[in-house]
Amino acid sequence: MSDILQKLSEVLEARKNADADSSYVASLYQAGTDKILKKVGEEAAETIIAAKDGDKAQIIYETADLWFHTMVLLAHNDISVNAVIEELDRRFGLSGLDEKASRDTK
Amino acid sequence: MSDILQKLSEVLEARKNADADSSYVASLYQAGTDKILKKVGEEAAETIIAAKDGDKAQIIYETADLWFHTMVLLAHNDISVNAVIEELDRRFGLSGLDEKASRDTK
Amino acid sequence: MSDILQKLSEVLEARKNADADSSYVASLYQAGTDKILKKVGEEAAETIIAAKDGDKAQIIYETADLWFHTMVLLAHNDISVNAVIEELDRRFGLSGLDEKASRDTK
Amino acid sequence: MSDILQKLSEVLEARKNADADSSYVASLYQAGTDKILKKVGEEAAETIIAAKDGDKAQIIYETADLWFHTMVLLAHNDISVNAVIEELDRRFGLSGLDEKASRDTK
Repeated sequence: MSDILQKLSEVLEARKNADADSSYVASLYQAGTDKILKKVGEEAAETIIAAKDGDKAQIIYETADLWFHTMVLLAHNDISVNAVIEELDRRFGLSGLDEKASRDTK
Repeated sequence: MSDILQKLSEVLEARKNADADSSYVASLYQAGTDKILKKVGEEAAETIIAAKDGDKAQIIYETADLWFHTMVLLAHNDISVNAVIEELDRRFGLSGLDEKASRDTK
Repeated sequence: MSDILQKLSEVLEARKNADADSSYVASLYQAGTDKILKKVGEEAAETIIAAKDGDKAQIIYETADLWFHTMVLLAHNDISVNAVIEELDRRFGLSGLDEKASRDTK
Repeated sequence: MSDILQKLSEVLEARKNADADSSYVASLYQAGTDKILKKVGEEAAETIIAAKDGDKAQIIYETADLWFHTMVLLAHNDISVNAVIEELDRRFGLSGLDEKASRDTK
Protein backbone atom coordinates (compact mmCIF):
# COMPACT_ATOMS: atom_id res chain seq x y z
CA MET A 1 0.00 0.00 0.00
CA SER A 2 2.71 2.27 1.17
CA ASP A 3 4.54 3.37 -1.90
CA ILE A 4 1.63 3.93 -4.25
CA LEU A 5 1.58 7.70 -3.75
CA GLN A 6 5.34 7.87 -4.21
CA LYS A 7 5.01 5.93 -7.47
CA LEU A 8 2.16 8.16 -8.62
CA SER A 9 4.33 11.18 -7.81
CA GLU A 10 7.04 9.73 -10.06
CA VAL A 11 4.55 9.03 -12.84
CA LEU A 12 3.30 12.63 -12.65
CA GLU A 13 6.89 13.87 -12.79
CA ALA A 14 7.61 11.72 -15.85
CA ARG A 15 4.52 13.03 -17.66
CA LYS A 16 6.05 16.51 -17.69
CA ASN A 17 8.02 15.50 -20.75
CA ALA A 18 5.03 13.96 -22.50
CA ASP A 19 3.11 15.50 -25.35
CA ALA A 20 -0.08 17.30 -24.25
CA ASP A 21 -2.10 15.14 -26.61
CA SER A 22 -0.75 11.94 -25.12
CA SER A 23 -2.25 12.08 -21.64
CA TYR A 24 -4.71 13.94 -19.46
CA VAL A 25 -1.92 14.84 -17.03
CA ALA A 26 0.26 16.27 -19.78
CA SER A 27 -2.69 18.31 -21.04
CA LEU A 28 -3.19 19.72 -17.52
CA TYR A 29 0.46 20.76 -17.29
CA GLN A 30 0.27 22.48 -20.64
CA ALA A 31 -3.00 24.24 -19.77
CA GLY A 32 -1.19 25.55 -16.72
CA THR A 33 -1.76 26.45 -13.08
CA ASP A 34 -5.21 28.02 -13.43
CA LYS A 35 -6.64 24.96 -15.18
CA ILE A 36 -5.22 22.66 -12.49
CA LEU A 37 -6.64 24.93 -9.75
CA LYS A 38 -10.09 24.97 -11.36
CA LYS A 39 -10.01 21.19 -11.23
CA VAL A 40 -9.02 21.30 -7.53
CA GLY A 41 -12.02 23.55 -6.85
CA GLU A 42 -14.32 21.35 -8.90
CA GLU A 43 -13.16 18.12 -7.25
CA ALA A 44 -13.55 19.65 -3.78
CA ALA A 45 -17.15 20.47 -4.70
CA GLU A 46 -17.70 16.92 -5.96
CA THR A 47 -16.26 15.48 -2.74
CA ILE A 48 -18.69 17.62 -0.74
CA ILE A 49 -21.59 16.47 -2.92
CA ALA A 50 -20.61 12.80 -2.54
CA ALA A 51 -20.32 13.17 1.23
CA LYS A 52 -23.76 14.81 1.45
CA ASP A 53 -25.13 11.82 -0.48
CA GLY A 54 -23.47 9.53 2.08
CA ASP A 55 -22.30 7.36 -0.81
CA LYS A 56 -19.09 5.64 0.36
CA ALA A 57 -17.96 4.47 -3.07
CA GLN A 58 -18.47 7.96 -4.44
CA ILE A 59 -16.65 9.56 -1.48
CA ILE A 60 -13.66 7.31 -2.22
CA TYR A 61 -13.83 8.09 -5.94
CA GLU A 62 -14.08 11.87 -5.52
CA THR A 63 -11.45 12.02 -2.76
CA ALA A 64 -9.11 10.11 -5.10
CA ASP A 65 -9.91 12.67 -7.81
CA LEU A 66 -9.21 15.55 -5.42
CA TRP A 67 -5.93 14.04 -4.19
CA PHE A 68 -4.90 13.26 -7.75
CA HIS A 69 -5.39 16.84 -8.91
CA THR A 70 -3.55 18.22 -5.86
CA MET A 71 -0.69 15.85 -6.75
CA VAL A 72 -0.67 17.25 -10.30
CA LEU A 73 -0.49 20.70 -8.68
CA LEU A 74 2.43 19.58 -6.50
CA ALA A 75 4.30 18.12 -9.48
CA HIS A 76 3.61 21.25 -11.54
CA ASN A 77 5.34 23.19 -8.74
CA ASP A 78 8.22 20.68 -8.49
CA ILE A 79 7.04 19.54 -5.05
CA SER A 80 7.22 15.87 -4.09
CA VAL A 81 4.19 14.28 -2.43
CA ASN A 82 6.61 13.35 0.33
CA ALA A 83 6.76 16.99 1.37
CA VAL A 84 3.03 16.90 2.13
CA ILE A 85 3.27 13.59 3.97
CA GLU A 86 6.24 14.88 5.99
CA GLU A 87 4.17 17.94 6.93
CA LEU A 88 1.40 15.66 8.21
CA ASP A 89 4.01 13.57 10.02
CA ARG A 90 5.47 16.70 11.63
CA ARG A 91 2.07 17.87 12.83
CA PHE A 92 1.00 14.60 14.32
CA GLY A 93 4.34 13.13 15.33
CA LEU A 94 3.43 9.98 13.43
CA SER A 95 6.93 8.64 12.83
CA GLY A 96 7.25 8.09 16.56
CA LEU A 97 3.98 6.19 16.74
CA ASP A 98 5.48 2.83 15.86
CA GLU A 99 7.03 2.33 19.23
CA LYS A 100 4.00 3.72 21.03
CA ALA A 101 1.65 1.55 18.99
CA SER A 102 3.70 -1.55 19.79
CA ARG A 103 3.51 -0.65 23.49
CA ASP A 104 -0.24 -0.10 23.29
CA THR A 105 -0.86 -3.56 22.01
CA LYS A 106 1.08 -5.32 24.74
CA MET B 1 7.58 7.67 4.50
CA SER B 2 5.26 4.98 3.42
CA ASP B 3 3.08 4.30 6.38
CA ILE B 4 2.52 7.81 7.65
CA LEU B 5 -0.92 8.13 6.08
CA GLN B 6 -1.92 4.72 7.40
CA LYS B 7 -0.84 5.78 10.89
CA LEU B 8 -2.70 9.06 10.59
CA SER B 9 -5.77 7.10 9.50
CA GLU B 10 -5.47 5.02 12.67
CA VAL B 11 -5.02 8.13 14.83
CA LEU B 12 -8.15 9.66 13.29
CA GLU B 13 -10.07 6.43 13.96
CA ALA B 14 -8.91 6.40 17.59
CA ARG B 15 -10.01 10.00 18.12
CA LYS B 16 -13.61 8.96 17.50
CA ASN B 17 -13.79 7.88 21.12
CA ALA B 18 -12.19 11.05 22.43
CA ASP B 19 -14.00 13.89 24.15
CA ALA B 20 -14.83 16.79 21.81
CA ASP B 21 -12.98 19.15 24.14
CA SER B 22 -9.83 17.08 24.03
CA SER B 23 -8.79 17.49 20.39
CA TYR B 24 -9.56 19.40 17.22
CA VAL B 25 -10.35 16.15 15.39
CA ALA B 26 -12.81 15.04 18.06
CA SER B 27 -14.49 18.46 17.89
CA LEU B 28 -14.87 18.06 14.11
CA TYR B 29 -16.49 14.64 14.49
CA GLN B 30 -18.92 16.02 17.05
CA ALA B 31 -19.76 19.06 14.91
CA GLY B 32 -20.58 16.61 12.14
CA THR B 33 -20.42 16.17 8.39
CA ASP B 34 -21.34 19.73 7.40
CA LYS B 35 -18.60 21.25 9.55
CA ILE B 36 -16.02 18.85 8.08
CA LEU B 37 -17.21 19.65 4.55
CA LYS B 38 -16.99 23.41 5.16
CA LYS B 39 -13.37 22.87 6.17
CA VAL B 40 -12.76 20.85 2.97
CA GLY B 41 -14.15 23.77 0.93
CA GLU B 42 -12.13 26.30 2.91
CA GLU B 43 -8.88 24.35 2.62
CA ALA B 44 -9.40 23.88 -1.14
CA ALA B 45 -9.73 27.67 -1.43
CA GLU B 46 -6.56 28.15 0.64
CA THR B 47 -4.68 25.67 -1.56
CA ILE B 48 -5.75 27.64 -4.64
CA ILE B 49 -4.65 30.91 -3.01
CA ALA B 50 -1.25 29.44 -2.04
CA ALA B 51 -0.72 28.11 -5.57
CA LYS B 52 -1.56 31.48 -7.11
CA ASP B 53 1.05 33.03 -4.80
CA GLY B 54 3.55 30.44 -6.07
CA ASP B 55 4.67 29.92 -2.47
CA LYS B 56 5.96 26.34 -2.26
CA ALA B 57 6.02 26.12 1.55
CA GLN B 58 2.45 27.41 1.65
CA ILE B 59 1.33 25.00 -1.10
CA ILE B 60 2.71 22.12 0.98
CA TYR B 61 1.09 23.45 4.15
CA GLU B 62 -2.35 24.00 2.60
CA THR B 63 -2.32 20.72 0.66
CA ALA B 64 -1.53 18.95 3.95
CA ASP B 65 -4.47 20.81 5.53
CA LEU B 66 -6.74 19.76 2.65
CA TRP B 67 -5.62 16.12 2.77
CA PHE B 68 -5.97 16.08 6.53
CA HIS B 69 -9.56 17.30 6.44
CA THR B 70 -10.47 14.84 3.68
CA MET B 71 -8.98 12.10 5.90
CA VAL B 72 -11.21 13.27 8.77
CA LEU B 73 -14.10 13.03 6.32
CA LEU B 74 -13.07 9.49 5.36
CA ALA B 75 -12.77 8.43 9.00
CA HIS B 76 -16.13 10.02 9.81
CA ASN B 77 -17.60 7.80 7.09
CA ASP B 78 -15.70 4.70 8.31
CA ILE B 79 -13.54 4.68 5.19
CA SER B 80 -9.84 3.82 5.40
CA VAL B 81 -7.36 6.03 3.59
CA ASN B 82 -6.23 2.81 1.91
CA ALA B 83 -9.46 2.78 -0.07
CA VAL B 84 -8.47 6.10 -1.68
CA ILE B 85 -4.92 4.94 -2.34
CA GLU B 86 -6.21 1.69 -3.86
CA GLU B 87 -8.49 3.72 -6.12
CA LEU B 88 -5.48 5.73 -7.34
CA ASP B 89 -3.54 2.48 -7.75
CA ARG B 90 -6.38 0.99 -9.77
CA ARG B 91 -6.55 3.99 -12.09
CA PHE B 92 -2.85 4.21 -12.78
CA GLY B 93 -1.85 0.58 -12.43
CA LEU B 94 0.85 1.64 -10.00
CA SER B 95 1.28 -1.66 -8.18
CA GLY B 96 2.72 -3.11 -11.37
CA LEU B 97 5.19 -0.29 -11.79
CA ASP B 98 7.86 -1.78 -9.55
CA GLU B 99 9.05 -4.21 -12.12
CA LYS B 100 8.74 -1.71 -14.93
CA ALA B 101 10.63 0.92 -12.91
CA SER B 102 13.46 -1.51 -12.24
CA ARG B 103 13.63 -2.27 -15.96
CA ASP B 104 13.64 1.44 -16.83
CA THR B 105 16.72 2.12 -14.73
CA LYS B 106 18.80 -0.59 -16.31
CA MET C 1 -29.89 48.73 -13.75
CA SER C 2 -32.31 47.78 -11.10
CA ASP C 3 -34.49 45.15 -12.62
CA ILE C 4 -31.90 43.18 -14.55
CA LEU C 5 -31.61 40.44 -11.92
CA GLN C 6 -35.39 40.20 -11.68
CA LYS C 7 -35.59 39.80 -15.44
CA LEU C 8 -32.83 37.21 -15.44
CA SER C 9 -34.73 35.36 -12.72
CA GLU C 10 -37.79 35.32 -14.98
CA VAL C 11 -35.74 34.12 -17.95
CA LEU C 12 -34.34 31.29 -15.85
CA GLU C 13 -37.84 30.36 -14.74
CA ALA C 14 -39.07 30.33 -18.34
CA ARG C 15 -36.20 28.08 -19.44
CA LYS C 16 -37.56 25.31 -17.20
CA ASN C 17 -39.96 24.41 -19.96
CA ALA C 18 -37.32 24.49 -22.67
CA ASP C 19 -35.75 21.49 -24.32
CA ALA C 20 -32.37 20.53 -22.83
CA ASP C 21 -30.79 20.80 -26.25
CA SER C 22 -32.07 24.31 -26.76
CA SER C 23 -30.12 26.19 -24.12
CA TYR C 24 -27.28 25.86 -21.62
CA VAL C 25 -29.68 26.69 -18.77
CA ALA C 26 -32.15 24.01 -19.81
CA SER C 27 -29.30 21.49 -20.01
CA LEU C 28 -28.25 22.41 -16.44
CA TYR C 29 -31.80 21.87 -15.15
CA GLN C 30 -31.98 18.50 -16.84
CA ALA C 31 -28.55 17.44 -15.55
CA GLY C 32 -29.84 18.28 -12.09
CA THR C 33 -28.74 19.66 -8.75
CA ASP C 34 -25.30 18.02 -8.59
CA LYS C 35 -24.27 19.39 -11.99
CA ILE C 36 -25.41 22.89 -11.00
CA LEU C 37 -23.52 22.63 -7.69
CA LYS C 38 -20.32 21.49 -9.42
CA LYS C 39 -20.56 24.61 -11.54
CA VAL C 40 -21.03 26.75 -8.39
CA GLY C 41 -17.85 25.21 -6.94
CA GLU C 42 -15.97 25.66 -10.20
CA GLU C 43 -17.04 29.29 -10.63
CA ALA C 44 -16.10 30.08 -7.02
CA ALA C 45 -12.62 28.71 -7.77
CA GLU C 46 -12.43 30.81 -10.94
CA THR C 47 -13.47 33.94 -9.03
CA ILE C 48 -10.68 33.28 -6.50
CA ILE C 49 -8.17 32.78 -9.33
CA ALA C 50 -9.26 36.02 -11.05
CA ALA C 51 -9.00 37.95 -7.79
CA LYS C 52 -5.49 36.61 -7.13
CA ASP C 53 -4.55 37.82 -10.62
CA GLY C 54 -5.93 41.25 -9.70
CA ASP C 55 -7.60 41.36 -13.13
CA LYS C 56 -10.69 43.57 -12.75
CA ALA C 57 -12.34 42.55 -16.02
CA GLN C 58 -11.86 38.89 -15.11
CA ILE C 59 -13.18 39.43 -11.55
CA ILE C 60 -16.34 40.95 -13.05
CA TYR C 61 -16.66 38.12 -15.58
CA GLU C 62 -16.18 35.32 -13.06
CA THR C 63 -18.39 36.94 -10.41
CA ALA C 64 -21.12 37.20 -13.05
CA ASP C 65 -20.58 33.51 -13.83
CA LEU C 66 -20.81 32.63 -10.12
CA TRP C 67 -23.94 34.72 -9.58
CA PHE C 68 -25.51 33.30 -12.73
CA HIS C 69 -25.02 29.70 -11.62
CA THR C 70 -26.34 30.47 -8.11
CA MET C 71 -29.40 31.98 -9.82
CA VAL C 72 -29.85 28.77 -11.80
CA LEU C 73 -29.64 26.95 -8.46
CA LEU C 74 -32.28 29.26 -6.98
CA ALA C 75 -34.61 28.77 -9.95
CA HIS C 76 -34.07 25.00 -9.84
CA ASN C 77 -35.31 25.17 -6.22
CA ASP C 78 -38.24 27.48 -7.10
CA ILE C 79 -36.65 30.36 -5.21
CA SER C 80 -36.84 33.90 -6.58
CA VAL C 81 -33.69 36.01 -6.62
CA ASN C 82 -35.75 38.52 -4.64
CA ALA C 83 -35.58 36.20 -1.64
CA VAL C 84 -31.78 36.55 -1.61
CA ILE C 85 -31.93 40.32 -2.07
CA GLU C 86 -34.52 40.60 0.71
CA GLU C 87 -32.21 38.59 2.97
CA LEU C 88 -29.39 41.06 2.26
CA ASP C 89 -31.82 43.93 2.84
CA ARG C 90 -32.89 42.44 6.16
CA ARG C 91 -29.30 42.04 7.34
CA PHE C 92 -28.19 45.51 6.45
CA GLY C 93 -31.42 47.43 6.85
CA LEU C 94 -30.93 48.81 3.35
CA SER C 95 -34.54 49.70 2.59
CA GLY C 96 -34.35 52.36 5.28
CA LEU C 97 -31.16 53.83 3.86
CA ASP C 98 -32.90 56.11 1.37
CA GLU C 99 -33.98 58.56 3.97
CA LYS C 100 -30.69 58.33 5.84
CA ALA C 101 -28.73 58.78 2.61
CA SER C 102 -30.75 61.88 1.73
CA ARG C 103 -30.00 63.30 5.19
CA ASP C 104 -26.30 62.52 4.91
CA THR C 105 -25.93 64.54 1.76
CA LYS C 106 -27.53 67.69 3.17
CA MET D 1 -36.37 45.55 -4.55
CA SER D 2 -34.37 47.03 -7.30
CA ASP D 3 -31.83 49.25 -5.66
CA ILE D 4 -30.95 47.13 -2.66
CA LEU D 5 -27.75 45.77 -4.20
CA GLN D 6 -26.72 49.26 -5.30
CA LYS D 7 -27.26 50.52 -1.75
CA LEU D 8 -25.31 47.60 -0.31
CA SER D 9 -22.52 48.39 -2.76
CA GLU D 10 -22.46 51.98 -1.42
CA VAL D 11 -22.47 50.76 2.19
CA LEU D 12 -19.52 48.48 1.42
CA GLU D 13 -17.68 51.37 -0.21
CA ALA D 14 -18.32 53.61 2.81
CA ARG D 15 -17.00 50.96 5.21
CA LYS D 16 -13.56 51.28 3.61
CA ASN D 17 -12.94 54.28 5.81
CA ALA D 18 -14.21 52.57 8.96
CA ASP D 19 -12.04 51.23 11.74
CA ALA D 20 -11.41 47.45 11.48
CA ASP D 21 -12.80 47.01 14.98
CA SER D 22 -16.03 48.75 14.10
CA SER D 23 -17.52 46.31 11.60
CA TYR D 24 -17.12 42.85 10.09
CA VAL D 25 -16.76 44.36 6.62
CA ALA D 26 -14.00 46.73 7.74
CA SER D 27 -12.19 43.80 9.38
CA LEU D 28 -12.38 41.86 6.08
CA TYR D 29 -10.87 44.79 4.15
CA GLN D 30 -8.05 45.07 6.65
CA ALA D 31 -7.39 41.32 6.63
CA GLY D 32 -7.07 41.63 2.87
CA THR D 33 -7.77 39.76 -0.34
CA ASP D 34 -6.82 36.26 0.84
CA LYS D 35 -9.16 36.44 3.84
CA ILE D 36 -12.03 37.61 1.62
CA LEU D 37 -11.31 34.82 -0.89
CA LYS D 38 -11.26 32.16 1.85
CA LYS D 39 -14.72 33.36 2.82
CA VAL D 40 -15.87 33.12 -0.82
CA GLY D 41 -14.64 29.51 -0.91
CA GLU D 42 -16.25 28.72 2.42
CA GLU D 43 -19.60 30.28 1.50
CA ALA D 44 -19.64 28.42 -1.83
CA ALA D 45 -19.18 25.18 0.13
CA GLU D 46 -22.00 26.16 2.49
CA THR D 47 -24.28 26.94 -0.45
CA ILE D 48 -23.56 23.49 -1.90
CA ILE D 49 -24.27 21.87 1.48
CA ALA D 50 -27.56 23.77 1.87
CA ALA D 51 -28.65 22.80 -1.65
CA LYS D 52 -27.87 19.12 -1.00
CA ASP D 53 -30.06 19.37 2.11
CA GLY D 54 -32.84 20.82 -0.08
CA ASP D 55 -33.46 23.42 2.63
CA LYS D 56 -34.88 26.49 0.86
CA ALA D 57 -34.41 28.91 3.77
CA GLN D 58 -30.81 27.77 4.12
CA ILE D 59 -30.19 28.03 0.36
CA ILE D 60 -31.40 31.65 0.50
CA TYR D 61 -29.28 32.37 3.58
CA GLU D 62 -26.09 30.86 2.19
CA THR D 63 -26.54 32.36 -1.28
CA ALA D 64 -26.94 35.77 0.41
CA ASP D 65 -23.71 35.06 2.33
CA LEU D 66 -21.93 34.10 -0.88
CA TRP D 67 -23.17 37.16 -2.78
CA PHE D 68 -22.32 39.40 0.15
CA HIS D 69 -18.72 38.19 0.29
CA THR D 70 -18.32 38.51 -3.49
CA MET D 71 -19.62 42.09 -3.12
CA VAL D 72 -16.96 42.75 -0.46
CA LEU D 73 -14.44 41.36 -2.96
CA LEU D 74 -15.77 43.69 -5.67
CA ALA D 75 -15.60 46.72 -3.35
CA HIS D 76 -12.10 45.76 -2.22
CA ASN D 77 -11.13 45.89 -5.91
CA ASP D 78 -12.98 49.18 -6.51
CA ILE D 79 -15.55 47.45 -8.70
CA SER D 80 -19.22 48.44 -8.53
CA VAL D 81 -21.83 45.71 -8.33
CA ASN D 82 -23.33 47.36 -11.40
CA ALA D 83 -20.40 46.06 -13.45
CA VAL D 84 -21.45 42.48 -12.62
CA ILE D 85 -25.11 43.19 -13.34
CA GLU D 86 -24.19 44.86 -16.64
CA GLU D 87 -22.16 41.78 -17.55
CA LEU D 88 -25.22 39.59 -16.93
CA ASP D 89 -27.33 42.05 -18.91
CA ARG D 90 -24.87 41.93 -21.79
CA ARG D 91 -24.88 38.13 -21.88
CA PHE D 92 -28.62 37.73 -21.80
CA GLY D 93 -29.73 40.91 -23.52
CA LEU D 94 -32.00 41.61 -20.58
CA SER D 95 -32.36 45.38 -21.03
CA GLY D 96 -34.24 44.73 -24.21
CA LEU D 97 -36.59 42.30 -22.54
CA ASP D 98 -39.01 44.96 -21.29
CA GLU D 99 -40.59 45.43 -24.64
CA LYS D 100 -40.52 41.73 -25.44
CA ALA D 101 -42.03 40.87 -22.05
CA SER D 102 -44.83 43.36 -22.58
CA ARG D 103 -45.50 41.79 -25.97
CA ASP D 104 -45.48 38.29 -24.52
CA THR D 105 -48.21 39.10 -22.04
CA LYS D 106 -50.61 40.49 -24.61
